[in-house]
Amino acid sequence: MDPARAFVALVHHPVYDRTGKVVSTALTNLDLHDIARSTRTYGLGGFFVVHPVEAQRELASRILGHWRDEGAELNDFRRMALERVHVVPTLEDAAKAVTDRLRERPQLIATCARPSGTAVRFTGFDCKLPILLVFGTGWGLTEELMATCDARLEPLQGPTDYNHLSVRSACAIVLDRLYGIRQD
Amino acid sequence: MDPARAFVALVHHPVYDRTGKVVSTALTNLDLHDIARSTRTYGLGGFFVVHPVEAQRELASRILGHWRDEGAELNDFRRMALERVHVVPTLEDAAKAVTDRLRERPQLIATCARPSGTAVRFTGFDCKLPILLVFGTGWGLTEELMATCDARLEPLQGPTDYNHLSVRSACAIVLDRLYGIRQD
Repeated sequence: MDPARAFVALVHHPVYDRTGKVVSTALTNLDLHDIARSTRTYGLGGFFVVHPVEAQRELASRILGHWRDEGAELNDFRRMALERVHVVPTLEDAAKAVTDRLRERPQLIATCARPSGTAVRFTGFDCKLPILLVFGTGWGLTEELMATCDARLEPLQGPTDYNHLSVRSACAIVLDRLYGIRQD
Repeated sequence: MDPARAFVALVHHPVYDRTGKVVSTALTNLDLHDIARSTRTYGLGGFFVVHPVEAQRELASRILGHWRDEGAELNDFRRMALERVHVVPTLEDAAKAVTDRLRERPQLIATCARPSGTAVRFTGFDCKLPILLVFGTGWGLTEELMATCDARLEPLQGPTDYNHLSVRSACAIVLDRLYGIRQD
């Protein structure tokens, strides 16, 4: 698979909170930095921050603008990572932006910590199509949103029954499993 | 390898800053949370926060105490992750604590984003010995500190020449490569 035809979307709504209620989560500064650095390291085409609230999108744009402009001199590696981040109101806007760029609609691949009988394996993608990997903040993407995606990726699994990785960690691991180079 | 005989140390000194100067970095709240959640997910024996400055160790202990006590009701999964975190002044203190627990000294495995001719591969460990995986904050562990470790792990590698993962992301990926369960 060509990582340049793969994209990440970080969705802040609709996601669950810890009680199972559907909410919008607040932007987390380090999500932007960590996921931007991971997508850049693994050669992805881009990273979309999805938030329905205009003030939160403005905040994201201000953070990105800082590192693109004044911060660039301080840390050029951050600029290189953050210049590929885009802020959009909905997941469909992210899908459309990828479609416009590649002239082909990406497969939307939802990620989820809960197991599912219909999940696709990490080696189970159709390599010919571009993909948009969809991550949820809070306690994860709603079932309703996942149902609008084309597929659902198998959950990450360690040797325990505890499965509460941060979205930053989960995204990094998924990209490494899909695009990491192993010498062994 | 038994993950319960593996531990992580996050070192705040001695590490490089972006100019190559040896510094102590400030504690980052999300490092504690993310790495605790990753070590718990992958079944590790524990996680050591290494900081030479007493005020920073006290801050770490206050954060951990909050989630162990008042925060536990709010989010029991955070408590479960953070209860295995220990705060120590030096890497040697972490190694000693592991030795006391297992009655066997762990191999100290340094991690580094820079390539090295002597690095061990992810499949190259002696499985019989316990291990302490050592991660650096800032711009990474100093060469001097790495020379005191028993081995140096090969760097993570994506398909690009950009390699600036956050330490939170790098730790998550290393644990997944060593202890993740793959169905494929």
